[in-house]
Amino acid sequence: MGWRRPRLLCCLFLSLSAASLARAATRYNEWEISYQLRSPDCVRKLAVTINGQTPGPTIRAAQGDTVVVRVKNSLLTENVAIHWHGVRQRGTPWADGTEGVTQCPVLPGDTFTYTFVVDRPGTYMYHAHYGMQRSAGLNGLIVVAAAPGEPEPFAYDGEHAVLLNDWWHASTYEQAAGLASVPLVWVGEPQSLLNNGRGRFADCSAAAAASNASLPECAAPVFAVVPGKTYRFRVASVTSLSALNFEIEGHQMTVVEADGHYVKPFVVKNLNIYSGETYSVLIKADQDPNRNYWLASNVVSRKPGTATGTAVLSYYGGRSSPRRPPPTTPPTGPAWDDTMYRFRQSVATVAHPAHIQTPPPCADRTILLLNTQNRINGAIKWALNNVSFTLPHTPYLVAMKSGLLGAFDQRPPETYAHQGYDIYGVQKNQNATTSDALYRLQFGSVVDVVLQNANMLAPNNSETHPWHLHGHDFWVLGYGIGRFDPAVHPASYNLKDPILKNTVAVHPYGWTALRFKADNPGVWAFHCHIESHFFMGMGIVFEEGVERVGKLPQEIMGCGMTKGH
Amino acid sequence: MGWRRPRLLCCLFLSLSAASLARAATRYNEWEISYQLRSPDCVRKLAVTINGQTPGPTIRAAQGDTVVVRVKNSLLTENVAIHWHGVRQRGTPWADGTEGVTQCPVLPGDTFTYTFVVDRPGTYMYHAHYGMQRSAGLNGLIVVAAAPGEPEPFAYDGEHAVLLNDWWHASTYEQAAGLASVPLVWVGEPQSLLNNGRGRFADCSAAAAASNASLPECAAPVFAVVPGKTYRFRVASVTSLSALNFEIEGHQMTVVEADGHYVKPFVVKNLNIYSGETYSVLIKADQDPNRNYWLASNVVSRKPGTATGTAVLSYYGGRSSPRRPPPTTPPTGPAWDDTMYRFRQSVATVAHPAHIQTPPPCADRTILLLNTQNRINGAIKWALNNVSFTLPHTPYLVAMKSGLLGAFDQRPPETYAHQGYDIYGVQKNQNATTSDALYRLQFGSVVDVVLQNANMLAPNNSETHPWHLHGHDFWVLGYGIGRFDPAVHPASYNLKDPILKNTVAVHPYGWTALRFKADNPGVWAFHCHIESHFFMGMGIVFEEGVERVGKLPQEIMGCGMTKGH
Repeated sequence: MGWRRPRLLCCLFLSLSAASLARAATRYNEWEISYQLRSPDCVRKLAVTINGQTPGPTIRAAQGDTVVVRVKNSLLTENVAIHWHGVRQRGTPWADGTEGVTQCPVLPGDTFTYTFVVDRPGTYMYHAHYGMQRSAGLNGLIVVAAAPGEPEPFAYDGEHAVLLNDWWHASTYEQAAGLASVPLVWVGEPQSLLNNGRGRFADCSAAAAASNASLPECAAPVFAVVPGKTYRFRVASVTSLSALNFEIEGHQMTVVEADGHYVKPFVVKNLNIYSGETYSVLIKADQDPNRNYWLASNVVSRKPGTATGTAVLSYYGGRSSPRRPPPTTPPTGPAWDDTMYRFRQSVATVAHPAHIQTPPPCADRTILLLNTQNRINGAIKWALNNVSFTLPHTPYLVAMKSGLLGAFDQRPPETYAHQGYDIYGVQKNQNATTSDALYRLQFGSVVDVVLQNANMLAPNNSETHPWHLHGHDFWVLGYGIGRFDPAVHPASYNLKDPILKNTVAVHPYGWTALRFKADNPGVWAFHCHIESHFFMGMGIVFEEGVERVGKLPQEIMGCGMTKGH
Repeated sequence: MGWRRPRLLCCLFLSLSAASLARAATRYNEWEISYQLRSPDCVRKLAVTINGQTPGPTIRAAQGDTVVVRVKNSLLTENVAIHWHGVRQRGTPWADGTEGVTQCPVLPGDTFTYTFVVDRPGTYMYHAHYGMQRSAGLNGLIVVAAAPGEPEPFAYDGEHAVLLNDWWHASTYEQAAGLASVPLVWVGEPQSLLNNGRGRFADCSAAAAASNASLPECAAPVFAVVPGKTYRFRVASVTSLSALNFEIEGHQMTVVEADGHYVKPFVVKNLNIYSGETYSVLIKADQDPNRNYWLASNVVSRKPGTATGTAVLSYYGGRSSPRRPPPTTPPTGPAWDDTMYRFRQSVATVAHPAHIQTPPPCADRTILLLNTQNRINGAIKWALNNVSFTLPHTPYLVAMKSGLLGAFDQRPPETYAHQGYDIYGVQKNQNATTSDALYRLQFGSVVDVVLQNANMLAPNNSETHPWHLHGHDFWVLGYGIGRFDPAVHPASYNLKDPILKNTVAVHPYGWTALRFKADNPGVWAFHCHIESHFFMGMGIVFEEGVERVGKLPQEIMGCGMTKGH
């Protein structure tokens, strides 16, 4: 079967210069999704793979290119959907890959073609957006080079890409069943932390694990550098649960990119990275070339129950074999509960002076979302303003374009009773409702969202939630610890050089304020990127300008009210 | 949402008397399919459940009743389809529940309504017919009572029902991935044998299993009897792999029913039962009532790696608590490799003299199927005449009624080069092809199928294959050990009182000959009922009179070429 002409709207190209248009290429990818028995941490487990691998192949393209991914579902009984995380899908909202929001799932035996333009350079990722398939292995990197003639505000001699993940030996089906059980059956902390899909289960009393220790698929990744050169490390986290701290032993990092946007450079010993975030850091290969160095990832924000994830930095021409473990103990990162350490890095991440996109000075609408754990019929859920999200039976985009505007509740709660609310106590009203309510935004309006973190059901406990917005980048206007006061805190917003991101941390007992322009016609999920939290209801959905969306492709339909239509 | 009027064709009722029609009831069942963490053998595992249970609820109806089962799929990412095993679906071929053959799978969130008539009394079962969901727990019993005024040819005072199964701790997804791997990763023998969904993992060194040993869900089932009374035990096997021998310690059994047909009664110490078969046996409660007795199931035909599955027979009014284990060791059954022991029981199973349905004296067509293990691209498959079956992307029934008669190969091999073929040797030509070829039968014609067993890929190895035919019962005309000779063996066929069955064993190195009339318009699978064998290609599909099938219900469509139609 040949390639069909990619379905594209003219407006896709509006923001690109004629010159870059002329250069734009189409990058074809042919993927087959299948179950494979893999041993990423030397312990064999069922994985959902792309062309037999997890993570899947890295998509490489240049700014302005069209990416075409033809996905064949060769699973047995299970459907799929793949999200292109950080790609705004301007003009192609049906290609966002969010099951229940922008498309029906892809059935076993079916082939679905995703076609979209990568209109900004930077580091992105892709992953399943259906059930808990992301955790099952369906994820990978997208690297978009700057268009030729569009210089980046930093220089480097070579680059490496690092995809960080956490990994469990229990199946994702079992994890999901446990999360929905009453009482909740919690899978526990991950068995391993993976670097580019490789790790080493540390507590392997099992003979099987030991006998697999020489498997190439769980050999530690080696990143080679030439002495004296500067390297860009693209670092992405697709973890299901864990907030991570990433360190390259003995090498300071300069942070230069976050979620595809240039950062005012700042130097760190190590990088805090939350699920759904991407960064680029520069390192100089200026250490003793005759030994190797650890790349270490450590769990932060939750009390770690998982060994440090490791890989190796090795110098070309040095006297150490690339495969030799460094002579040191891997770095253990900062104290896991040092919230302020992470908070300071969040605040330090602002736009590069030469790449500031000034936010609109004020918002047309402000949505204040209280993040709490709740109970519904005895089951533990996450909720926003006491509403726990559930996906509808017919994807929003499809339902709304079919004239079913009234199919969803359209009056979700805009705020919560924040005055006098004790975010440090266990919530008094633990009741929540489930809803597929849709936040409809006026097209072109400016929207502020303030995410307010609070205590969980257990006393003295508040987690970090990395919130991810589809279809947009948002300006990060401010962070705080404590209760957000709409009368006080907006005055402290950074309107000068806020970074644009698509994923941002809300720190324990803290708040994060962000702003975006509702100028991308479509329906867009906004949710905590911890997979179990979204599964348990921690998300909402925005709609804007759906009337401006062109004719939907037939292939996103076939479920719910569009089954058999 | 209210009940819709069941979709029925008038012809459904043609074979029922006016009297029974007047009595016929409609039995409504509302099912929700979901993942649950269950501990059927005291070890917790993910199961696919019906209304939270595995096995699911027993469907009870009387001959002539209409059964309606509204199935809501509440799985996360996985589709379902449910087959009503032994129900011929005359007039409702779209309700057979065979994914890829008679319907598209039911998507998560969707509800599918199965409506069919149970036109014969007897013992049947239901189970998923999609991927390996049957093994994952989606199965149960159907018990159809004789219509009032239609006496059965035996008497009893009470009845019990026993559903036998085998159970693994590895997930079915993992099992399937292993079966498709090169080299094959075999899950090994089952961890437990279950009786009505309960067993006890015998090799439980794990502390977890021990701590779960008091769970009610894995307590041994107790079957209570009144001294002096006669009981009908309905016994069904839904095993994925295991051939079983079932014994009630100290109580001889009289076999009276097989697959819904009355058997010329014969007495056995224990009953061999293959996956997909059902039997009724009578026992007399004539033993010492002051002790309990074992119900024991043991693996036969494969070298057992699984402990005896047990339950308890207890007498009312005796001095033993129903929960007290019998004072003996559970029966271990016949030698696992005593093929002739099982062969003799097969041959002994003939029609009850008062219920003989004489087969047509000769066949219009004879299909001779050689059962072999083969390799395709290095993967191990099962094949018939060196063709390994694969399901098509669009279900046959849907494709054919949509005028896509040419969508499938329609010339599958009718026979194999049987003259001089050495069934006792490893097959010389191990190459096979995969195909979704369809055997099209002339409507109303009489078809003979001879299933010829042979050696596997490993020397000196031949397994028992229980073959199951959808949409029909067939007469079992004969069994043999050795190579079937079309010029010799048909002369020995039992044309006098052959039993009608829907599932029949093909013994190691043996052959089984069966006959049926192609008089049920539809498309019908015929396959080995060992789940992994069908997954690996051991099946074919028959079509007959598809032009006589009425308008298909919309809800069976929505996949393959009917996606979005």
